[in-house]
Amino acid sequence: MLEYANRMKNLTASEIRELLKVADRPEVLSFAGGLPAAELFPIKEMAAAGASVLKNNGEKALQYSTTEGFLPLREWVAKRENKRIGTELTADNILITHGSQQALDLVGKLLINKDDVVLCESPTYLAALNVFKTFEGRMIEVQTDQDGMIVSDLERILATTANVKLIYVIPTFQNPSGKTWSFERKKQILAVADRYDIAVIEDAPYEELRYSGEFTLPMFSISENANVIRTGSFSKVLCPGLRIVWICAEAKVIEKLVLIKQNTDLQCNTLTQMQIAEFVRTNDLDAHIAHLIHTYRIRRDAAISAIENYFPKTIQYTQPEGGLFIWVELPEKINATDLLQKSLKRHVAFVSGESFYAEQPKYNTMRLNFSCMDEEKINAGFKILGELIMEELKNE
Amino acid sequence: MLEYANRMKNLTASEIRELLKVADRPEVLSFAGGLPAAELFPIKEMAAAGASVLKNNGEKALQYSTTEGFLPLREWVAKRENKRIGTELTADNILITHGSQQALDLVGKLLINKDDVVLCESPTYLAALNVFKTFEGRMIEVQTDQDGMIVSDLERILATTANVKLIYVIPTFQNPSGKTWSFERKKQILAVADRYDIAVIEDAPYEELRYSGEFTLPMFSISENANVIRTGSFSKVLCPGLRIVWICAEAKVIEKLVLIKQNTDLQCNTLTQMQIAEFVRTNDLDAHIAHLIHTYRIRRDAAISAIENYFPKTIQYTQPEGGLFIWVELPEKINATDLLQKSLKRHVAFVSGESFYAEQPKYNTMRLNFSCMDEEKINAGFKILGELIMEELKNE
Repeated sequence: MLEYANRMKNLTASEIRELLKVADRPEVLSFAGGLPAAELFPIKEMAAAGASVLKNNGEKALQYSTTEGFLPLREWVAKRENKRIGTELTADNILITHGSQQALDLVGKLLINKDDVVLCESPTYLAALNVFKTFEGRMIEVQTDQDGMIVSDLERILATTANVKLIYVIPTFQNPSGKTWSFERKKQILAVADRYDIAVIEDAPYEELRYSGEFTLPMFSISENANVIRTGSFSKVLCPGLRIVWICAEAKVIEKLVLIKQNTDLQCNTLTQMQIAEFVRTNDLDAHIAHLIHTYRIRRDAAISAIENYFPKTIQYTQPEGGLFIWVELPEKINATDLLQKSLKRHVAFVSGESFYAEQPKYNTMRLNFSCMDEEKINAGFKILGELIMEELKNE
Repeated sequence: MLEYANRMKNLTASEIRELLKVADRPEVLSFAGGLPAAELFPIKEMAAAGASVLKNNGEKALQYSTTEGFLPLREWVAKRENKRIGTELTADNILITHGSQQALDLVGKLLINKDDVVLCESPTYLAALNVFKTFEGRMIEVQTDQDGMIVSDLERILATTANVKLIYVIPTFQNPSGKTWSFERKKQILAVADRYDIAVIEDAPYEELRYSGEFTLPMFSISENANVIRTGSFSKVLCPGLRIVWICAEAKVIEKLVLIKQNTDLQCNTLTQMQIAEFVRTNDLDAHIAHLIHTYRIRRDAAISAIENYFPKTIQYTQPEGGLFIWVELPEKINATDLLQKSLKRHVAFVSGESFYAEQPKYNTMRLNFSCMDEEKINAGFKILGELIMEELKNE
């Protein structure tokens, strides 16, 4: 009978994840996952890139390689970030990781001692943050408004809480809320983090999927010291199954993270890194993203219309400028997990919002993904959700 | 200025790894790495498998998938293990991981609290074990003879040491020593581990690469309780760049490891898992392994001959029945890291043995890999090493 480590007490299977196992069935209209639209994956181009790498460089592609990641890919990422967000990065500022979850695992190992505190938005992408539970860290929520974390709430927590090690934020098209921070708020929160000398993790997987509104520079670009660690990802702009993500940070922080990755999984998949490097060399990623944006914008608009048409007027919802999610606050008396159980019976899935709170869940909230179903299905599924919400209201 | 976690004190860059950075240059005869022979990789077949997966199942291959791993691959692994090692595993006993290093990272997270003790062979594959440093575990060496860990030394340590959580062993063609445990010794060590109720990690990446001698059942097969966790790997029998490894364990342990992996990197690469599943479905892996064995046996024999021909008679060395490594003990006065610096000047690389000791290094030891250079290069490189050792002896 094995005796497990103390950290295992923090790790439990998610009930909502269990509920949602049926959401994979083909008859289910699912707005639950954070899945990109599979029909938009550049399958042929990715196949061509893989074939080319194996034909021209097969021995290298199947052999061990460096922990830092495939150098041409790191150089490409650095250049692209520089162009997009006005930085002056080189490959030394980039570490390739196996998914965003691993990026957080490595950062957790770098920074978190037992009982250290991680601050996060309320709501936040808790599934990502659960990583820090492995290091027996403690999550505390900072309240948010439409512009991002509320400065006074952050100040209050920092003034009264010991061992705050980092602030985790998704400032652009946040998961789950769909919200985007204002530029002013990014500067204000950074100023507070700087004053307390606390690391900021800026998770930016959705940033390039903008359907409306204006781009503003990310926190990583405007930070005046080196305490911001940024993650970027091919998962949402290309495909998630290949698990290729990058961390941007000061070179000396990257060096430490490389040491950690050596002791975590040694290196990312060599072939996959070379395949993605070949894909971006031989294809126009910007054109591909423009194509994604075109489709996702239509779906976002269809989702917003369906909410307007079918949901009661007493709800609140975000109108995201990009990303994959709309966040809905139902009348307080409705429990969204109960609603989910009912909607699954009618073959419609979503994620109830309670999963996204580190401390005090709002049980009347729901996250609706609009990227992986077409307009017709969005309309049909949201119609059912609207009916179920109306029924719940009548039952009160 | 970021404040790092306490565990970072344990993680330092390896000086020998730094020395060996030059070993990648094409002019160097390298016996340093644990690299399989790249010219034997089934590149065309792997390319065909990847092309087929993307053509027939591209959307699935590029999308998110389950943490447990691709079900047909887990089923294939279970069946193959059952046939090879007489177990009765199902897919529920198999978790696919991103390399052996990750298998150990997950096991470390499952079992190791700060200051817990991990027992290992002396010498052992310390690079793998460094994982446990991340969890602030402490490594203690158990002395070994030609048959494996010495039972009385294990008993002595267990009787006098608190918080021993696991025993890490590579019983077959061990890295670095090339030794293989006797069947009797496996049973004896298991009996002690059972008595103290301690987990045993049986790392078995080389097991299928046998060039001579008799196969005996691994510890996982003969254990009477469920405390053995086994890892197996495609890295040495197929290719390491794809990072596909598996853990075999009791289903309830796999469930815990799945929870941990969810919070570590979510899942392995979907495409890669499907590609390997397609490869083993459409190719004869046994025939491929037979081909590897044929070549590696010639190289092992060439390496042993070269040692006999060029090294002084005062050294000791293992005659491995399989795997990738020969272990040499030089006369005590020779420091193998000094020798390495001299041999690198003559474009010959190996790993000095001090890297493989958790406690008391033997500085007069060296690990020689024989898998990734052909006979001619082995002969030429070992001749230079022999000359350098002879020179060192004269200088004494």
